[in-house]
Amino acid sequence: MLTVNAYAAPAAGEPLVPTTIERRDVGPNDVLIDIKYAGICHSDIHTVQGDWGPQQYPLVPGHEIVGFVTEVGSDVTTHQVGDRVGVGCMVNSCGECAQCRRGEEQFCVQGNIGTYGAVDRDGTITQGGYSTHVVVDAGFVLRVPEALDFASAAPLLCAGITTYSPLRHWKVGAGSRVAVVGMGGLGHMGVQIAHAMGAEVTVLSQTLSKQEDGKRFGADHYFATSDPETFTQLASSFDFILNTVSAEIDLNAYLSLLDVDGTMVNVGAPPAALPVTPFTLIGARRSFAGSLIGGIRETQEMLDFCAEHGINAATELIGADQINEAYERVMTSKVRYRAVIDTSTLG
Amino acid sequence: MLTVNAYAAPAAGEPLVPTTIERRDVGPNDVLIDIKYAGICHSDIHTVQGDWGPQQYPLVPGHEIVGFVTEVGSDVTTHQVGDRVGVGCMVNSCGECAQCRRGEEQFCVQGNIGTYGAVDRDGTITQGGYSTHVVVDAGFVLRVPEALDFASAAPLLCAGITTYSPLRHWKVGAGSRVAVVGMGGLGHMGVQIAHAMGAEVTVLSQTLSKQEDGKRFGADHYFATSDPETFTQLASSFDFILNTVSAEIDLNAYLSLLDVDGTMVNVGAPPAALPVTPFTLIGARRSFAGSLIGGIRETQEMLDFCAEHGINAATELIGADQINEAYERVMTSKVRYRAVIDTSTLG
Repeated sequence: MLTVNAYAAPAAGEPLVPTTIERRDVGPNDVLIDIKYAGICHSDIHTVQGDWGPQQYPLVPGHEIVGFVTEVGSDVTTHQVGDRVGVGCMVNSCGECAQCRRGEEQFCVQGNIGTYGAVDRDGTITQGGYSTHVVVDAGFVLRVPEALDFASAAPLLCAGITTYSPLRHWKVGAGSRVAVVGMGGLGHMGVQIAHAMGAEVTVLSQTLSKQEDGKRFGADHYFATSDPETFTQLASSFDFILNTVSAEIDLNAYLSLLDVDGTMVNVGAPPAALPVTPFTLIGARRSFAGSLIGGIRETQEMLDFCAEHGINAATELIGADQINEAYERVMTSKVRYRAVIDTSTLG
Repeated sequence: MLTVNAYAAPAAGEPLVPTTIERRDVGPNDVLIDIKYAGICHSDIHTVQGDWGPQQYPLVPGHEIVGFVTEVGSDVTTHQVGDRVGVGCMVNSCGECAQCRRGEEQFCVQGNIGTYGAVDRDGTITQGGYSTHVVVDAGFVLRVPEALDFASAAPLLCAGITTYSPLRHWKVGAGSRVAVVGMGGLGHMGVQIAHAMGAEVTVLSQTLSKQEDGKRFGADHYFATSDPETFTQLASSFDFILNTVSAEIDLNAYLSLLDVDGTMVNVGAPPAALPVTPFTLIGARRSFAGSLIGGIRETQEMLDFCAEHGINAATELIGADQINEAYERVMTSKVRYRAVIDTSTLG
């Protein structure tokens, strides 16, 4: 066992505090990672606050992890000491079901094992990346290409794959007319990735306040959703809408922006049910769908794609003592566009 | 002009009455059809009752039409006098937009011209198939294969294509696990067509009262949705769900029956918005979509497919004086499974 520094939520809704946690001994298939950077995802906040169900505390969040390999198990052939690696939202899955076999571990029939707050195979509760070290099954460890800035690569492990996967799955490419709803941590990745895939990208944001950033990330057009004229002007004009907003929005208004055979995909999950008018779908064979991160193979593909296309998350590097403040700033949409913890400050 | 016998709704909510209407002279691209049979679709009832918006009355409904060609315009090369033909839900479209060019006239950017209650190119209101004759642009006239029983072929023009098109579009085939929700006019066609495509077909009906019929139509399994156990037992077990029910149902319960990457398609349109929980979609990359009849080319393909596979609508042949009674029986789900008017009784 390895005792390591970490930041944990001591209870639902309480500020995170410094602590130590135990990491298991490196097993034959494990990799020990010296964590360098960990992104702060809105999911971290929802989870530690108990918004998505009760948790066991203390809980260390963090599923956007990059670092160096410092030890590998005897059976590990895919990673070596010194490798730049990353860990995302999952640290294991059954490996045997149809979904795991086709590389969609996020949909594992047994349920994938989340990077934090999940029951691990040994019965312990997984603890995440706001920590100096983590031990992970080699099959869930990604290679981080040298071309990627290390700190800025951390958010790719969740925000990157969450937006990349649906864009790939629904075959966005040259000529696709794509709208990205929301210009936060997820949205600013979606814009860059869709642009790199060759799409004509439109940002739909509440206001025009981030318009310059959006254009810099590759958006061709930028509209304010607070202006009702936007919905008239853009009616039936998109092939694909990536909705990164987890607040409750008027789905029918957005679905009406899809052309015939268009698809709108939610990657943010408002807890409430939202009304959908079937006729809005029927009238133009539109689809409303959801997407959940991506499989391990696809996550590696995404990292390689980002390296090839020079895509990084826009980040604010923070120290451990700024985590609670960053949580406040995430919740009020003030972060531009992802806060990343320098884990050397964990003490 | 040709004056012909018909049955029309004189006003919203009033019983249909015998009347005469005018059909235009046969133009160079027109076909004059001596109507033999006309199916009664639930849409007819919604429309004449004004459920889907105000109408001009008197209105002759009917968009499941079969008959013989008795005259063709000078430029018509696709049909000849004596041909067995059919007309479905559309009688024209712009012919020039992207949707028309790819054969999806139902999604014409200008709006397709419905077989009844729509503004035709000459400014008149179209009148439907509860009539002895109709004049239709040749491009919207289908060939009815000899192998199809003529009266039973009428409902294929709406109920057939409405279920065939989404099954084809979402690539249902050998091994697909398909559920058909509802065992009425649409549902009994969906079961037959999905079965002929090679799918494993499950009917989800309120009760088991039509189970024997369902099995005869090709269903492999039959479950009552009034039994909550159905939803537990069938969780995550379908690739495709065809929802033919236009009543308000608990969408989330049905969406939960989809496996990863499954799609549920509504072809019935409840007027109200129905709540959808995005997390139900996200957790298994499920889609909720809508589909509207099908294009003309695909409607011909469906007729040929039904002829090849021996698929017919199950029909009750009625006389004109039974139309109003049939409306009552459609609304109370008593028809097995489509009422078809013998137009020789129109007087």
